[in-house]
Amino acid sequence: MPATPHVEAHFTAPESVRDVVIGMSDGLTVPFALAAGITGAVATNPHASALVVTAGFAEIAAGSIAMGLGGYLAARTDLEHYASEREREVRETVELRDVEVEEVAKVFRDYGLTETEMAPVVTAITSNQNSWVDFMMRFELGLEEPQPKRARISALTIAMSYVVGGLIPLAPYMLLSNVQTGLWWSVGVTLLALAVFGWVKGRFTGINPIKGGLQTVVTGGLAAAAAFLIAKLISYK
Amino acid sequence: MPATPHVEAHFTAPESVRDVVIGMSDGLTVPFALAAGITGAVATNPHASALVVTAGFAEIAAGSIAMGLGGYLAARTDLEHYASEREREVRETVELRDVEVEEVAKVFRDYGLTETEMAPVVTAITSNQNSWVDFMMRFELGLEEPQPKRARISALTIAMSYVVGGLIPLAPYMLLSNVQTGLWWSVGVTLLALAVFGWVKGRFTGINPIKGGLQTVVTGGLAAAAAFLIAKLISYK
Repeated sequence: MPATPHVEAHFTAPESVRDVVIGMSDGLTVPFALAAGITGAVATNPHASALVVTAGFAEIAAGSIAMGLGGYLAARTDLEHYASEREREVRETVELRDVEVEEVAKVFRDYGLTETEMAPVVTAITSNQNSWVDFMMRFELGLEEPQPKRARISALTIAMSYVVGGLIPLAPYMLLSNVQTGLWWSVGVTLLALAVFGWVKGRFTGINPIKGGLQTVVTGGLAAAAAFLIAKLISYK
Repeated sequence: MPATPHVEAHFTAPESVRDVVIGMSDGLTVPFALAAGITGAVATNPHASALVVTAGFAEIAAGSIAMGLGGYLAARTDLEHYASEREREVRETVELRDVEVEEVAKVFRDYGLTETEMAPVVTAITSNQNSWVDFMMRFELGLEEPQPKRARISALTIAMSYVVGGLIPLAPYMLLSNVQTGLWWSVGVTLLALAVFGWVKGRFTGINPIKGGLQTVVTGGLAAAAAFLIAKLISYK
């Protein structure tokens, strides 16, 4: 029998890391791809650089707000959904007591326990309404209680990460007057940033960092290539 | 005791509905906001409509690929994460058997059971390695087994929903030669689409449909207003 304490190194990324990943992976990818696409379409326009930067900032504003507010509303919906399901379970432990007791018993019957063996467990779980409902939420519905107050922090983290990610591909277009040179620097800087980001993300989510880096580079590269080609195909002469 | 079967009407949206919601809420919002933003910046340009449509299509290509591939990779990561955590638990039930048995016992001790009462339950759960590991995955880690093969369908559903959503705000700019008229029609058509979408989404996620409709309209409207203002502020003369 081990005498030393046993610490399990299961990976559970803090939610804030998840939010940074959500915001930054889209922030690095979509404004990058859009800027590349517009460059393909307007390269001969005398205001090409300004157009690319304008569209890029409009996209960053739109994308960060849409994702941030989207994250906020999703977190709120999760909270409301959990609360309403919990309320229903609480009601059912009163109104449909026998059915709900039987649902607890079924969990243990499925593990092969006899009625005599499971009786004390079922009694213990159902004797406290709060822990009984917790048990049902987890076992019957597979729902975990969301952290309240996460919604606002989550929204801000996602939005800010999107803005930070989006400024990286735009910086070369702002610093260089030639839009073609800007494009190549943007491609280089962004693919590098995507590789670093994917590597770090891999470390956090437990997948191979090299694989993680490759995944984000390929995603960003494909999105940019598609945007570039489509914009070039339909661009005005 | 109730003799009629008891069917619990808990809401669990099918994952495909969730994917449509993810793709379409961003598809309706970001290309809409971007097109509005670019209109604000280039309204006096003779090629304004073509520019807006080009940027819009580039955004739809970039956004749908980024979101679709992002969804694919997220689903794959979930699968790999579940598999690697499960493998670790399987290993631990062999190598750290006593510790893992104690972790099962702790769950029931927390429900107030005595050692004698819980003994048969702990024995039953730990007698079958498979159900033992299932129990640990669910109770210790709160992880549910993801459906395999979801990744590809999920990616396609998200991407297609993004494309469908994104074409709605762009259609007026394609059909009308005047970019200002296009903008007003785009605002009208898209806010209507956002309201309908939010209402339907509310029905599916169990929140009030009117509230759901308002939420998506406000999100899309704020994103578009911000993109419009930012593009107008930094637009080239």
